[in-house]
Amino acid sequence: MDLKLIAARTPGFAGADLANVVNEAALLAARKDRDKVVMADFMEAIERVVAGLEKKNRRMNEKEKEIVAYHESGHGLVSSLCAHSEPVHKISIIPRGLAALGYTLQLPLEDRYLMSREELLDKMAGLMGGRAAEEIVVGSISTGASNDFKQATEIARLMVTEYGMSEALGPISYSDRGRSPFLQGPAGMAGITDKTYSERTQRRIDEEVSRLVEEAMQRARDIVSHHREALSRVAARLLQNEVIEGDELRRILAESGALPAEKKGPAAEAEAEHRESA
Amino acid sequence: MDLKLIAARTPGFAGADLANVVNEAALLAARKDRDKVVMADFMEAIERVVAGLEKKNRRMNEKEKEIVAYHESGHGLVSSLCAHSEPVHKISIIPRGLAALGYTLQLPLEDRYLMSREELLDKMAGLMGGRAAEEIVVGSISTGASNDFKQATEIARLMVTEYGMSEALGPISYSDRGRSPFLQGPAGMAGITDKTYSERTQRRIDEEVSRLVEEAMQRARDIVSHHREALSRVAARLLQNEVIEGDELRRILAESGALPAEKKGPAAEAEAEHRESA
Amino acid sequence: MDLKLIAARTPGFAGADLANVVNEAALLAARKDRDKVVMADFMEAIERVVAGLEKKNRRMNEKEKEIVAYHESGHGLVSSLCAHSEPVHKISIIPRGLAALGYTLQLPLEDRYLMSREELLDKMAGLMGGRAAEEIVVGSISTGASNDFKQATEIARLMVTEYGMSEALGPISYSDRGRSPFLQGPAGMAGITDKTYSERTQRRIDEEVSRLVEEAMQRARDIVSHHREALSRVAARLLQNEVIEGDELRRILAESGALPAEKKGPAAEAEAEHRESA
Amino acid sequence: MDLKLIAARTPGFAGADLANVVNEAALLAARKDRDKVVMADFMEAIERVVAGLEKKNRRMNEKEKEIVAYHESGHGLVSSLCAHSEPVHKISIIPRGLAALGYTLQLPLEDRYLMSREELLDKMAGLMGGRAAEEIVVGSISTGASNDFKQATEIARLMVTEYGMSEALGPISYSDRGRSPFLQGPAGMAGITDKTYSERTQRRIDEEVSRLVEEAMQRARDIVSHHREALSRVAARLLQNEVIEGDELRRILAESGALPAEKKGPAAEAEAEHRESA
Amino acid sequence: MDLKLIAARTPGFAGADLANVVNEAALLAARKDRDKVVMADFMEAIERVVAGLEKKNRRMNEKEKEIVAYHESGHGLVSSLCAHSEPVHKISIIPRGLAALGYTLQLPLEDRYLMSREELLDKMAGLMGGRAAEEIVVGSISTGASNDFKQATEIARLMVTEYGMSEALGPISYSDRGRSPFLQGPAGMAGITDKTYSERTQRRIDEEVSRLVEEAMQRARDIVSHHREALSRVAARLLQNEVIEGDELRRILAESGALPAEKKGPAAEAEAEHRESA
Amino acid sequence: MDLKLIAARTPGFAGADLANVVNEAALLAARKDRDKVVMADFMEAIERVVAGLEKKNRRMNEKEKEIVAYHESGHGLVSSLCAHSEPVHKISIIPRGLAALGYTLQLPLEDRYLMSREELLDKMAGLMGGRAAEEIVVGSISTGASNDFKQATEIARLMVTEYGMSEALGPISYSDRGRSPFLQGPAGMAGITDKTYSERTQRRIDEEVSRLVEEAMQRARDIVSHHREALSRVAARLLQNEVIEGDELRRILAESGALPAEKKGPAAEAEAEHRESA
Repeated sequence: MDLKLIAARTPGFAGADLANVVNEAALLAARKDRDKVVMADFMEAIERVVAGLEKKNRRMNEKEKEIVAYHESGHGLVSSLCAHSEPVHKISIIPRGLAALGYTLQLPLEDRYLMSREELLDKMAGLMGGRAAEEIVVGSISTGASNDFKQATEIARLMVTEYGMSEALGPISYSDRGRSPFLQGPAGMAGITDKTYSERTQRRIDEEVSRLVEEAMQRARDIVSHHREALSRVAARLLQNEVIEGDELRRILAESGALPAEKKGPAAEAEAEHRESA
Repeated sequence: MDLKLIAARTPGFAGADLANVVNEAALLAARKDRDKVVMADFMEAIERVVAGLEKKNRRMNEKEKEIVAYHESGHGLVSSLCAHSEPVHKISIIPRGLAALGYTLQLPLEDRYLMSREELLDKMAGLMGGRAAEEIVVGSISTGASNDFKQATEIARLMVTEYGMSEALGPISYSDRGRSPFLQGPAGMAGITDKTYSERTQRRIDEEVSRLVEEAMQRARDIVSHHREALSRVAARLLQNEVIEGDELRRILAESGALPAEKKGPAAEAEAEHRESA
Repeated sequence: MDLKLIAARTPGFAGADLANVVNEAALLAARKDRDKVVMADFMEAIERVVAGLEKKNRRMNEKEKEIVAYHESGHGLVSSLCAHSEPVHKISIIPRGLAALGYTLQLPLEDRYLMSREELLDKMAGLMGGRAAEEIVVGSISTGASNDFKQATEIARLMVTEYGMSEALGPISYSDRGRSPFLQGPAGMAGITDKTYSERTQRRIDEEVSRLVEEAMQRARDIVSHHREALSRVAARLLQNEVIEGDELRRILAESGALPAEKKGPAAEAEAEHRESA
Repeated sequence: MDLKLIAARTPGFAGADLANVVNEAALLAARKDRDKVVMADFMEAIERVVAGLEKKNRRMNEKEKEIVAYHESGHGLVSSLCAHSEPVHKISIIPRGLAALGYTLQLPLEDRYLMSREELLDKMAGLMGGRAAEEIVVGSISTGASNDFKQATEIARLMVTEYGMSEALGPISYSDRGRSPFLQGPAGMAGITDKTYSERTQRRIDEEVSRLVEEAMQRARDIVSHHREALSRVAARLLQNEVIEGDELRRILAESGALPAEKKGPAAEAEAEHRESA
Repeated sequence: MDLKLIAARTPGFAGADLANVVNEAALLAARKDRDKVVMADFMEAIERVVAGLEKKNRRMNEKEKEIVAYHESGHGLVSSLCAHSEPVHKISIIPRGLAALGYTLQLPLEDRYLMSREELLDKMAGLMGGRAAEEIVVGSISTGASNDFKQATEIARLMVTEYGMSEALGPISYSDRGRSPFLQGPAGMAGITDKTYSERTQRRIDEEVSRLVEEAMQRARDIVSHHREALSRVAARLLQNEVIEGDELRRILAESGALPAEKKGPAAEAEAEHRESA
Repeated sequence: MDLKLIAARTPGFAGADLANVVNEAALLAARKDRDKVVMADFMEAIERVVAGLEKKNRRMNEKEKEIVAYHESGHGLVSSLCAHSEPVHKISIIPRGLAALGYTLQLPLEDRYLMSREELLDKMAGLMGGRAAEEIVVGSISTGASNDFKQATEIARLMVTEYGMSEALGPISYSDRGRSPFLQGPAGMAGITDKTYSERTQRRIDEEVSRLVEEAMQRARDIVSHHREALSRVAARLLQNEVIEGDELRRILAESGALPAEKKGPAAEAEAEHRESA
């Protein structure tokens, strides 16, 4: 049992999450009539806890499957080429959890307590990679990116209103969360946030959030435009196999010239090192 | 029993929906003193579950009946001529369910998980077909289109605020649904959405929603204007028979020159193919 | 027992309403020591259910009585001269129900499911007839029209925001009713509507609503101005008899030249026909 | 027992109010060791029910007493000189009820169901009489008029938003009271009014309300300025006797030339007539 | 026992307040092993009820003590020199009650029911005296004036929105308190005020409130500037003795030339007279 | 046992806080198998109560540790060089409490009841020191300053809206806290603040808050820019030892020329004096 590898795959997990992983792994082993839990059970169990159960009976048609493949490949490509992204661990078009048609798994290498401005911007660009791929390669956009937009908008909003990362707004906190304690009833009553800034300030926040999200979109579009060939290869492989592991992704990207052969992208190198040391 | 056809008619049905269908079919057979449920029972049962019970005692006067016939024919015509619409399965002016005076049934051919921009635009145009027919052919507009407008406005709003399908607003999420967990009381208390954008942004959202809905209306008007003759034939047949099946609709449209004889409209072909393969 | 006439007088009545009518008719017959319910009992019972109990001890002074007579006559005159109004069944200045000092009863001839733009505009004009009569004939305006304004404003608001009947706003739904299900607590908690449009849109809605109501007022003023003589005759008769039936109203209007002798107004003809066929 | 006079003094009284009056009158008689209730008991009882109990231990200083005397005299003067006011029944500077330092009692002569525009305007002017007297005769203004302003503002607001009595706004209802039934919880939960008009409309409402109140103030000021002498006489008498009955008030006003000797003011004549006929 | 003096010191006291005073006085006497309550016990008891218990263990440092001394002296000076202020009874820098570091006690000479415009303006100026002293004499401003500002702002707001004391806004009531009864749940539920005026009106209210508060501040600054010497003497004495009685304050102000020797300030004279007559 | 030193370290502690300290100290002694509580136990216990428990298993990576070290050194440097800051007692990069990755402990030398404008401005500058260090020395900004911004923004907001410390807004209170008692339900229901000022006033508040925070940021930037060398030395020592005591900090700053050798910064001197006298 390689406990270090399990630990490396579960940074940020709380006790309950780890208990879930152990339970799932035991169930998987039992279901396969093995009396010992093996490493593969743990790896599958971790993924179940992170992304939810596989939904095999969520059958998409061929067209949808292709869109999802390009969408996820877009996430994978852009994330792999951004210097401060977390390394891509896996891309899949097997539906999972409550709503996902596919997913791109980026496992952090360790618990993180701070995020730099660059890391947040790269995370936003990665989220925009799915739509960028639909726009540029599929040629038609779908509803599939709405959750990506929600996440990216939320990151941009936090950068502007809480992290002081917008020069236009400055190092001011426009967060009202939890400010007025009496606005939240003790017994779970509905609370009301007390917006303590003007419409004009809200307009400037909107402009900054809008600018940050648009710039992330443009970065994603630029990367996808310059690496259409690589993207198509990833998507093709994904349609064939349904799953691509991180190493294979980086190999395809290197073969397509998107990543230099000797370099596997900044984040991936860290993962590689980490694994070697494990 | 042609189970494949039943399955083809019930995509998107959950377990409870299917149980309802089986129950309804059994009741229908029993009422007709048959000891076996036949295919027709299932087809009627599916429609009951989708559109509600027939309301035979909801008696409209002749003028209203005519308006409803043109209104529904408008939906049917525009939907049939839009390339990305779901195929029309049936048009009826028999009142059903809680409020409907007539209905145009568009059954999807399979479960769908993604909607493209084009599909959403065509759906909106189809919804506008009813009012377009009232305006252009009946020459007087009625309250009957209010639910169509509500649906079309909601689609446009989602395109602009969640699906990133408006260039003016960009790939930003202006949805607040479920954003701040503490805004919803745990015991079903009233919650309050926390609008996190400015009046100016709301104005731009309004403009985009307005533009999308107006364009859909114009598309519907253009189609109805160019095919008044076909529309009148559909409406006349509907007044005569109260119900038109999808195939008959497409035949009338082809005979009127609205659809090329050899082509039954893009969506209908798919349905045809599907049925053949069933 | 003329059941057809009873049916003609009670379109739109639900089961409970009809039960009420039967009860009231039985009570009225009992009170008059008749052991059989006659037609008159039913007619009175229907009116009680529609307009509420007579309030004989609500004694107005002579001046108020005159104002009320002109006010109700205004409703009756304008409604009778609008082509798409429902026919006037009765005008009364006997106080009834919770608040009414008088009333103009317009019973629909049949259940209606659709309202055309013209019918809505005529209904608004009829509602404005009361104030128009106060302005032009009484020469002083009173608080008695506030409920008329409330109804007319609500109709105009629905035309603009739900029925797509304003060209300025277009076929867009600005109704928030029931849109966000989670805004209503399951146990009857207070909900909050989530206004999803901008102040500018609200301003345009205001302008359209204002325009529609003002136009209805102007139509009512024009009709009253051109038919002062007829209005005064109706009011005088009303002060004398307290009640005028629809046929008598139309006779007075014809004698005064407001309605051509051979024509009883468009709506009234329909009623007449209906009654003949009954 | 002059029952007609009691009836004349209690228009608008509901059953419970009348029961209160009878109770109070019985108590008053008992307290005075009389075994019969006399007319004076009834008159005092009516006043108690309308204005509340006398508060003899609410001792004002001389300066305050003077201000209150001029304030109430202002109400009395202006109300007496407005053609459509209800007649003044009594002015008093004996504190009563929860908060009043003095009061001007205007008993309606009969139950009223309609109010004309002129009556509302005169009522507003009468309410402004107190402050006008402070401004012009006392030369210093006090907090004592805040309730008058609240009532006058509410009347103006109703004229503009519900009674259609502002030409600028027109016959439109801007009242939201009770419009959306679901905004009020069934179990007395807090509700929220859904303001359905724009900031610009609200601004126009403000302007109209402001104009109406300012005009009422100016009318009150004009009347007080032209009749300072009469006002001072009323106030002096009030300081001397603490109470002035309506007839005495009109006599002083006539002696001061404010009311023509033969005419007691339009409203008072009605009262006089009424009493004579009683 | 000088009951008249006790009465003179307790105007506005309700029954419960007086009972508190008697209790406190008894306790104080008991604590000092006296079997009779003497006048001093009553005086101390009254102060306890008005200002709260002394907080001897709230130890400020020297700098804070100096600031507080100047702050309270500022209140005392400005109040003493405003013609319509209530007379200063005592200044103290012994912390009392929940939050006060010092206090300036202004006991009204009698129950008051009306406040004139001049009295409200002088009260505001007196409240501003503390900050004015900090600004001009201490040379640095502190957080200690926040409660003064809150009170002064509330007075100004009431003058503008309820008392009709702003010419710009006029005699209109912008108070929503208690207007819509249904906005308050019967069982103490949270209510919501329904703001019934426009943003522009709110802006004009803000401007007037701002102007009134600024003018009060300027008056306070002018008085402090012209009487720095007197202020310093009061503060010095306060630092020495911790408490200054009203008479001593007026003596120091007279010696410093702030008050003419023969006159003790308008309000003080009234107090003196009152005491003499007691 | 040096009780004076314990007292000097716990100003502002309430009884419950002191009881906590004694408990913690006893536990610490017991854990170390000592039967007597020594001074070091008390010092550690005080820190636990102020900053929370050490979180040894919150392991940051080297990069994060470096950022935190520079961030906390920035707080320490700026606070030490501002004339009205409380003296820095300790800087640490050992994670503590719920969320802190490091902390800069500024213990007040005594209970404080007033804060001057200068003290508030210096406190804001000290809060900005962390981000300033990230910007200028680390060259990349992180999410770690969000809580600093929240505190600084709140101080600025209070200065502008409650303490009357903005010339632009003046000595007016824009605080709504606790103003309308009925806005808070007695049983912990959600309340709603009633914003009683206009959008324009809110805009001016925003501008002032923004200006104050920006100025504090600029002061912090200036200090960090002029003392990069000193900052780096502090950070280096912190990375080495994880903790720096106040005296050591001031020694390093003096050696680096940031503080004159003979002067230990204004606040530190006070602490030194205090300790000597203890």
